[in-house]
Amino acid sequence: MPEQRISSERIFDGKLLKVRVDAVRLPSGREATREVVEHPGAVAILPVTDEGKLILVRQFRYAVGRKLLEVPAGTREPGEPDDETARRELHEEVGLEAATIELLARFFISPGWCNEELVAFRATGLREIGAQPEPDEDLEIVEIDPADVPALIASGEIGDAKTITAILAHLGNVSSRS
Amino acid sequence: MPEQRISSERIFDGKLLKVRVDAVRLPSGREATREVVEHPGAVAILPVTDEGKLILVRQFRYAVGRKLLEVPAGTREPGEPDDETARRELHEEVGLEAATIELLARFFISPGWCNEELVAFRATGLREIGAQPEPDEDLEIVEIDPADVPALIASGEIGDAKTITAILAHLGNVSSRS
Repeated sequence: MPEQRISSERIFDGKLLKVRVDAVRLPSGREATREVVEHPGAVAILPVTDEGKLILVRQFRYAVGRKLLEVPAGTREPGEPDDETARRELHEEVGLEAATIELLARFFISPGWCNEELVAFRATGLREIGAQPEPDEDLEIVEIDPADVPALIASGEIGDAKTITAILAHLGNVSSRS
Repeated sequence: MPEQRISSERIFDGKLLKVRVDAVRLPSGREATREVVEHPGAVAILPVTDEGKLILVRQFRYAVGRKLLEVPAGTREPGEPDDETARRELHEEVGLEAATIELLARFFISPGWCNEELVAFRATGLREIGAQPEPDEDLEIVEIDPADVPALIASGEIGDAKTITAILAHLGNVSSRS
């Protein structure tokens, strides 16, 4: 490890997040502090219909103060494989079951200060089985034509890392196959 | 606002991050808590050479415990326009000046709990003027062929949201023009 931990102060131990401040020794010998947010990770799933339409959810996000159009997603649960989390969120949030799910991308959301890893899947061969939203989860299900994606990104309606990455990876993949 | 703040507890006031826990009133009337990390936002810039190669930096990321290949990027500075931050990071981190910079995408990195917004630019018409790394910034500058991007994403060497989004947006844009 190029940066050696000297000490660690636990700042916050929340329901979702943990925060710590570490003192580290840099390769130069100097000391520095690192503010770190620990997050269990998240799983996203992009449902693609037989006609190539994308199923997204519109929801209010308190941390940013607005509604966003996002791929269905949820926090990783201890002991639950990522593809099961993906299938569960697909069922709960948009009421769909998928014949096939494939990995689109996995990435850290902001590795300079946070360990949250995001795993994004694509779901195809969809079948409606009825949504089961959690209490107080206020989701609007929206079907998007891929041709509208650039305008939705430009307007900010589609405006988060997991959704943009999943859609661009999906569309890139489709075009590289055709 | 669908969720009304009832109270807010300030947990941490760091050099980079602020953390608070808010009690909110949901549309249903129920109360819930929201753990929120405040971040000033960040600016990324993807340098593309006249030959179409991508200039990335390899650096150790303490929060995730490994090295990643990333687009040059930096934290937003109060009062500094995003395109100036981009040009400054381009100079400091990889020693380049750009004839043209264009917006590729802007997005929230994890809007469920964090307000960090990332603004990604593309830089072209590059000219070498000499890097000016900050003290203790341990960056290796790497030139990437776009054809190698899928393998680098699959291996996890390229593995963060801003880098994947910027590259996919750039490559999508290029192919949609051709």
